[in-house]
Amino acid sequence: MRYATLGGGKRIRPFLVTQTAQLLGAERSHALHVGAALECIHCYSLVHDDLPAMDDDALRRGRPTVHKAFDDATAILAGDALLTFAFDILSRPECHPAEGVRIALIAALARASGIGGMAGGQMLDLEAEGRFATAAPPLHDIAGVRTLQRMKTGALLHFACLSGALLAQADHEARDSIERYGFAIGEAFQIADDLLDIEGDPAVVGKATGKDASANKATLVDLLGVPAARERLNELVALAEQALARFGSAAAGLKATARFIANRNA
Amino acid sequence: MRYATLGGGKRIRPFLVTQTAQLLGAERSHALHVGAALECIHCYSLVHDDLPAMDDDALRRGRPTVHKAFDDATAILAGDALLTFAFDILSRPECHPAEGVRIALIAALARASGIGGMAGGQMLDLEAEGRFATAAPPLHDIAGVRTLQRMKTGALLHFACLSGALLAQADHEARDSIERYGFAIGEAFQIADDLLDIEGDPAVVGKATGKDASANKATLVDLLGVPAARERLNELVALAEQALARFGSAAAGLKATARFIANRNA
Repeated sequence: MRYATLGGGKRIRPFLVTQTAQLLGAERSHALHVGAALECIHCYSLVHDDLPAMDDDALRRGRPTVHKAFDDATAILAGDALLTFAFDILSRPECHPAEGVRIALIAALARASGIGGMAGGQMLDLEAEGRFATAAPPLHDIAGVRTLQRMKTGALLHFACLSGALLAQADHEARDSIERYGFAIGEAFQIADDLLDIEGDPAVVGKATGKDASANKATLVDLLGVPAARERLNELVALAEQALARFGSAAAGLKATARFIANRNA
Repeated sequence: MRYATLGGGKRIRPFLVTQTAQLLGAERSHALHVGAALECIHCYSLVHDDLPAMDDDALRRGRPTVHKAFDDATAILAGDALLTFAFDILSRPECHPAEGVRIALIAALARASGIGGMAGGQMLDLEAEGRFATAAPPLHDIAGVRTLQRMKTGALLHFACLSGALLAQADHEARDSIERYGFAIGEAFQIADDLLDIEGDPAVVGKATGKDASANKATLVDLLGVPAARERLNELVALAEQALARFGSAAAGLKATARFIANRNA
């Protein structure tokens, strides 16, 4: 569990929790606890995704994946225990003194990471590779790929932003702005990821590239082409920045984060 | 997820939730929701335990295991999604109108099923088989096996009972009685399971037997011998019944359940 969570990574999700919490006036210590829970979920998903039965990856963040450093059984159990630990953390008063806020966080994280979110999106992703003989043919339409990516990647990034609003018990309008920002960066993150898979340097990215093409998996970049995908990426950054317009310069950090997500090289 | 949860099984854990809830005066509909969450956790653990990287079982409840009926990736994701769904369920008002009760249930279930409970016990169990070259030698002392079993099996059965007390917002003494009952049946359940592994009929048990011996895994039955293990089982049933003495005949169902757990043949 330590190897999976403390071995680096960008920690973009916890960072978004602390930034949105700060913008809306929530306490930093609360945001750090929620960020830790969220990072447990993100890291468990990487550990399980890397397993031989899933994406079969040997390298993650420039180091052997958990099942390579230990073994498959340890990776399965460490992932299960990290997933569970996330909800343990969110149940604690250190996340927020109000039980209603903790319940709202738990409900939102469970939905974002479960069958209707990340885990369901991961299943659609395997189907999109045509891995299951009984399943639908490989996914080759833009709406289908968008749904898949919104579930698989977008839901957790959206939760990262939403959780700041929940911690701050923000009003409807502030929450709505933050959620629009969260949806925009969620889609941007995945397009940037797909572009990195095509154009990135494995030594910088810290994991194998070219996986999607070899898995015969359609991404938005395949369906739109690289130029149109880059254009959509710029549009999403503009949408993310517009969503935060009402906060003025206080939101400069979150706006810069949107640009970082779109233009990162790792 | 449906195949893993709706395909039979004794449903002992949800049954214990409803029985303890009834004894202590909690609402049945609340107990049913908590029981459903708990069964999601139990079933996810079976799906993951059955994987080739873990116990590599082909048969469960007389049917192909999830990874045999589908495939390994689907089994991993279905397990992850069931685990997550358990906390989704517990966050809902249908479990209990008081947010504090739901938080207490979530905290208790996370602890019972995580690194300090079921998942940690499962890891100790793999170590006890001597599967990891770097780990301690196979476990051959009674205290060590008891700790392992209390975590791996006992914690969820204890939670099943405790959750009835939490739902009923029971006083300290009632809760203490229920918890002593829960610990006793937890230990009894595992001894009965180990006896079934030695003496059971696979056609009745619904899964392969003789697995522990072939895995060179020490159980309490190995360490104590069959006669002493049976004696301990009877002692635990007596302890479970005594723990409920204060409830008189209202606890007849739970007492019968303790006897069923000790003497079951499947």
